[in-house]
Amino acid sequence: MQTRARGGAGTNQEAVRRHNLGTLLGQVHLRGRVSRADLTTHMGLNRSTIAGLVTELESLGLAEQVRSAAVRNGAGRPSPDVVPTPDGAHVLAVDVRVDGLAVARVGLGGTVLARATGPIPASRDPHAVADAIHAMLRLVVRDAAPSSALVGVGMAVPGVVRRSDGMVRLAPNLGWVDVPFSAILSERLGRIAPVEVGNDADLGALSEHLRGAGVDVADLVYLSGEVGVGAGVIVGGHRLVGAGGYAGEIGHLSLDPQGRECHCGNRGCWETQVGAHAIAEAIGCPADRVASLDEVLDALTSADEDLREVGRLLGRGLANVVNLLNPQVIVLGGFLRSLYPLVGEEVDRTLHDAALVAPQELVRVALPGLGPDAVLLGAAETAFGRLLADPVSCLGQAQLDVESALVVA
Amino acid sequence: MQTRARGGAGTNQEAVRRHNLGTLLGQVHLRGRVSRADLTTHMGLNRSTIAGLVTELESLGLAEQVRSAAVRNGAGRPSPDVVPTPDGAHVLAVDVRVDGLAVARVGLGGTVLARATGPIPASRDPHAVADAIHAMLRLVVRDAAPSSALVGVGMAVPGVVRRSDGMVRLAPNLGWVDVPFSAILSERLGRIAPVEVGNDADLGALSEHLRGAGVDVADLVYLSGEVGVGAGVIVGGHRLVGAGGYAGEIGHLSLDPQGRECHCGNRGCWETQVGAHAIAEAIGCPADRVASLDEVLDALTSADEDLREVGRLLGRGLANVVNLLNPQVIVLGGFLRSLYPLVGEEVDRTLHDAALVAPQELVRVALPGLGPDAVLLGAAETAFGRLLADPVSCLGQAQLDVESALVVA
Repeated sequence: MQTRARGGAGTNQEAVRRHNLGTLLGQVHLRGRVSRADLTTHMGLNRSTIAGLVTELESLGLAEQVRSAAVRNGAGRPSPDVVPTPDGAHVLAVDVRVDGLAVARVGLGGTVLARATGPIPASRDPHAVADAIHAMLRLVVRDAAPSSALVGVGMAVPGVVRRSDGMVRLAPNLGWVDVPFSAILSERLGRIAPVEVGNDADLGALSEHLRGAGVDVADLVYLSGEVGVGAGVIVGGHRLVGAGGYAGEIGHLSLDPQGRECHCGNRGCWETQVGAHAIAEAIGCPADRVASLDEVLDALTSADEDLREVGRLLGRGLANVVNLLNPQVIVLGGFLRSLYPLVGEEVDRTLHDAALVAPQELVRVALPGLGPDAVLLGAAETAFGRLLADPVSCLGQAQLDVESALVVA
Repeated sequence: MQTRARGGAGTNQEAVRRHNLGTLLGQVHLRGRVSRADLTTHMGLNRSTIAGLVTELESLGLAEQVRSAAVRNGAGRPSPDVVPTPDGAHVLAVDVRVDGLAVARVGLGGTVLARATGPIPASRDPHAVADAIHAMLRLVVRDAAPSSALVGVGMAVPGVVRRSDGMVRLAPNLGWVDVPFSAILSERLGRIAPVEVGNDADLGALSEHLRGAGVDVADLVYLSGEVGVGAGVIVGGHRLVGAGGYAGEIGHLSLDPQGRECHCGNRGCWETQVGAHAIAEAIGCPADRVASLDEVLDALTSADEDLREVGRLLGRGLANVVNLLNPQVIVLGGFLRSLYPLVGEEVDRTLHDAALVAPQELVRVALPGLGPDAVLLGAAETAFGRLLADPVSCLGQAQLDVESALVVA
């Protein structure tokens, strides 16, 4: 491996330095506050190299050095801590939900600097949705310093997304089929930054893995409950992508040949049993409140038999997840986060009875550590990817004075 | 990364050299015949380094250089080809099937040097099975040159195997629960080599990925049909392992709440629909022939309605696999290999109708490229792992004159 450098040692050294700079920034971004000593240990680089890289991050305005928090305990003089400069670089995150839009400006370190929520246009027309997102993003960039660089836009969609180009192949609850939404939004925003589009459950899994209930967990399943149910799956520390980026359509596991027809054309899909409409029916929730089912559930104090049966169907489907994927943690996101406190006993007991003993011993059902923000923060993380891969060249291309740029767009 | 070498450059260079030697041997092992020029390109090392490594493999008796096959086409003098020395190092592979035992001695390059099959003791008692394996292995090592090193024993079991120590947690069709079979067999063989135990479907997936229907395919599912149905899953080029090594228990996806009771305690598991007993019932196969269902199916020339219904249930389950995992290839192993030619139309049509469009466009259903040997060759591959990681130290510890060693054991 090392001998590859022989062809062009100078170029290679520069590439290694940029890579190391990005890796170090990634550590600071993820951990929030980290000592230079820890960085030295973690990255396997010597102290002077780390010091040089930290100085470079400072000069780029991405990080600062502060007196160590450990100063009172240590014997000698502790190395300084490095903290991210939240407004040194930021991203815009968008969560396109069935019931509305949520956007945020997120700074280095994963800090939410500003957020806004609003309705989604009733037509769900992609161009109308892009207009609404544009208007909401203008709200959250108002306080951005003109010098703060926008390095990316990340967006979550409840649907099947082609990874390579952000084409939304199918988002049934939006009525979208083959909508090139990455391109549409990028155009609407005047191409101020690359737009990364991902599946909502995949992005929930990412953020929970990095900062939530799945930190240090290599095998994790995040279930999104929007109107349907999807899964973001991390196996061996890596996202389960599939051949086309479509893996995780867990709501369309067909679990009952006598079950209800699903909008996908099949019958007995899991989301016909535990999706928003099934839950709404179980609790007598009116149709116009299905999209905000989480709030309706949060207001309940107990579950009747119909809802407990939904809990058992949830547990039964989770047993399938456990048997097939053997995860360590299953995170229940979206409205499932509000459902679980009401029917946790039914979920747990059915899961216990239905799953094989060996994988079941290892699994834990959890609520999102990031609460309702899991998906939005996952969208932010994916937008930071380019910066963390190569801070120098990413900043060189980044948009400054974002507010003005969005006004013109 | 490169700076890590500073702490001990000599040690690191030696580690890199050993790693490169193993990687080169792995290429020769996998590709069978490869030119030195291709090795140079593939490994990113210069010609003299490659030549030195090849010479070292020759001196270890693991590879030979032969005149290039391309000699008549090239303009200049082509670089020699490197081929593995099949008997330079070998492994013993064992496939514990429900209906019998298959063993082989497999040489470098994946060449089957000798094989034997035989019945499995009716009691399925682990010690009796180990005795039977010992006796069969003595048959296949008879022609091994005393100088040929045994570098590992690989074994496939139709059950849930804990990866870390080869403990068989559950093999229902053998009646095994928490059987430390790796230790039992290792003891019975006089500890002549490390014994690696794996799930049969995982090993089928491995060999089909390396040498069969899934070469150059990063996302592959191998379905084993023994008595039950299991899956070996490769995602993004890596094995789907799960938190405890239990992932892939696809036969226990519960797909019908009104379905039959399964031996696992659940109801409507996929293997109650498409497992050996369901197929035997559909074709009126007597109970004492269920274990050799593949032969019974191979003798059929057409499928009646009951068997076609099994085909539809197979297609329906495959649609779940496609929706959740988005594989590029699904390989049908075991008795499914014999079933598919009879009901391929029903399988394909149901899969087409039930799966989501986007992932379904990308998937191909295939028969094993390695035929009935897929699992056995997968067991061999896992036993070669130690040699390919570090040929020098592995050979230093390897057993020579295996025949004599097994007589004494």
